[in-house]
Amino acid sequence: MPTYKIAVLSGDGIGKEVMPEAIKVLDTVGRLCGIGFDYTHFDWSCETWLKTGQMMPEDGMSQLAQNDAILLGAVGYPGVPDHLSLWGLLLKIRREFDQYVNLRPVRLLPGIPCPLANKQPGDVDFWIVRENVEGEYSQVGGRFAEGTEAEGVVQSAVFTKFGTDRILRYAFELARKLGRPHVTSATKSNGLYHSMPYWDERFAAIGAEYPDVRMDQYHIDILAARFVMSPERFDVVVGSNLFGDILSDLGPGMTGTIAVAPSANINPEKKYPSMFEPVHGSAPDIFGQNIANPIGQIWAASMMLDHLGEAEAAALILKAMTDVLSDQSAPRTPDMGGLARTSDVGTAIAKAL
Amino acid sequence: MPTYKIAVLSGDGIGKEVMPEAIKVLDTVGRLCGIGFDYTHFDWSCETWLKTGQMMPEDGMSQLAQNDAILLGAVGYPGVPDHLSLWGLLLKIRREFDQYVNLRPVRLLPGIPCPLANKQPGDVDFWIVRENVEGEYSQVGGRFAEGTEAEGVVQSAVFTKFGTDRILRYAFELARKLGRPHVTSATKSNGLYHSMPYWDERFAAIGAEYPDVRMDQYHIDILAARFVMSPERFDVVVGSNLFGDILSDLGPGMTGTIAVAPSANINPEKKYPSMFEPVHGSAPDIFGQNIANPIGQIWAASMMLDHLGEAEAAALILKAMTDVLSDQSAPRTPDMGGLARTSDVGTAIAKAL
Ligand SMILES: CC(C)[C@H](C(=O)O)[C@@H](O)C(=O)O
Ligand SMILES: CC(C)[C@H](C(=O)O)[C@@H](O)C(=O)O
Repeated sequence: MPTYKIAVLSGDGIGKEVMPEAIKVLDTVGRLCGIGFDYTHFDWSCETWLKTGQMMPEDGMSQLAQNDAILLGAVGYPGVPDHLSLWGLLLKIRREFDQYVNLRPVRLLPGIPCPLANKQPGDVDFWIVRENVEGEYSQVGGRFAEGTEAEGVVQSAVFTKFGTDRILRYAFELARKLGRPHVTSATKSNGLYHSMPYWDERFAAIGAEYPDVRMDQYHIDILAARFVMSPERFDVVVGSNLFGDILSDLGPGMTGTIAVAPSANINPEKKYPSMFEPVHGSAPDIFGQNIANPIGQIWAASMMLDHLGEAEAAALILKAMTDVLSDQSAPRTPDMGGLARTSDVGTAIAKAL
Repeated sequence: MPTYKIAVLSGDGIGKEVMPEAIKVLDTVGRLCGIGFDYTHFDWSCETWLKTGQMMPEDGMSQLAQNDAILLGAVGYPGVPDHLSLWGLLLKIRREFDQYVNLRPVRLLPGIPCPLANKQPGDVDFWIVRENVEGEYSQVGGRFAEGTEAEGVVQSAVFTKFGTDRILRYAFELARKLGRPHVTSATKSNGLYHSMPYWDERFAAIGAEYPDVRMDQYHIDILAARFVMSPERFDVVVGSNLFGDILSDLGPGMTGTIAVAPSANINPEKKYPSMFEPVHGSAPDIFGQNIANPIGQIWAASMMLDHLGEAEAAALILKAMTDVLSDQSAPRTPDMGGLARTSDVGTAIAKAL
């Protein structure tokens, strides 16, 4: 029986509430498919930071490296500046494990109220490929003239050819693999003078290697508008770290799936463990009530299984999840108009398996 | 009779088609209200660039400075790299005339099909205040290791205290003036390590001067999602140059008003002329057919009158525009499901006056 070592980082807030449900579902699918999971729980969180000034111990990364994959809940809590908690855990792991692909589905699902008019499940169904380790997310920069009237701050984005080419190539390969040969690039080369003209240049160059794949590009402002106006037209959308971040919250937002959508941080070469998390954050406002929607965490577990090569188990989870969503009498958390608790939804999906 | 000197820059593509309609409407309202307009037409465009390598002549800015306001169509055309055409005209004028406020309405209007479900005119009605001269739009940076495997590009955003504080203050003042004392800040301080924590700090500091104004802030990714999920909750939204750009296309996109929404580039101190333009661009794909929707340009003319102190004339245009939109039998351009031509719509609005 294949057994996978899984690092479990529930993190902060509702991360702690949704994680047990994902594990419940993983254990169930494991029994069905003959897969074993060997979990190691890490309690690193903003509480750790408040006690130690660090988000993880000195040897944290090498502890994580022992695992086949990482399942993450959410990071961030009031009282700890966001940039410190994130750069000390989530962004650190993405970078040091070279998880340079962030992959997220934008998909209208049955049974989920959608903010867009006249859209049915199937109408909206595409993937966002986000560069996940460089670009606008950078610690290059700092303050100048601090404390004077001339005070200010410089924030430098750094795009390398190496980093740009490999994410673009991943997007083109994915479009081929999906049998949907169409890649849309998010740019802003009319305003961002150096970075985005370069991005466009590399998009054209890499695209030329894929003559069978149709290419188009939009400035990020009009692209955000087109997401909402005509989401049917997209297949694979590729963007920089920041643009991908924005689009991959907007996508789930407009399909009503913020609480449901997963996010995969992938090191495609499998040199390091990849990391899977829900799109939603730690949601301090609802933490402690056991009403958080666990489906994002559960879908993230399904993406993890896919990455580990367990496509059948991954598909079973996705099907159980969709069945529960389609069933009007199944339990729903308050964000979806129901009264169920986090654990009720997890149990229902485990049972549907 | 007050007479205003107006610099008319139709620019490229459909800019040339919608501008005559705005002038038709301005002339009509001028006759009604006893206001004169003294237009100077400038044919600066991407064609100029193709001929001369410049978007405007050497003394272009001082020619513009003679005017009370600038009415702009659109800039950008295939064959001229976007960053060259924009930095040579639109962005140059914004910067050199210190038009540090970009102000745009997000408003659901009668008679316009809206991509959002279950929303009525009145449900969505707020303003976006965008920093318009610094931040992420910057020429600081460049390429390194060009032509080698290590090639890449640095793009630096520069935020000054001076520039940040004045745009935040403008947003708080506007919220007070509108009697809607609530300002939402767009941030991304969890990912952008230097710039956005600083932006948040200044937002807190300036906000403390306005204890009567409610403040909240969201990271740009979730804010974009919330625009679509719950647009009712916003009053005044303030953002950096890039975040404001994205939000102020997303807003019109989700209300169906991309072709209708205006954009005001304001120098509040009136030291330099301010500039008014539609949100839409030059749309090369439909240029030449006389089917572009002129309403964005006409609404921009109304905002111009407001800025010039002609509130009554501005309101008359807005009313005529809304009347025509509400009237099912009035002419509509193809983007709004009709068969009318650009000039038919302009004439209808002029008549409605
Ligand atoms: C054309 C482009 C440079 C411009 C911008 O990004 O500012 C436009 O999108 C706008 O919003 O006016
Ligand atoms: C928490 C934050 C730093 C993170 C990001 O911006 O990458 C999140 O929004 C995400 O998309 O995973």
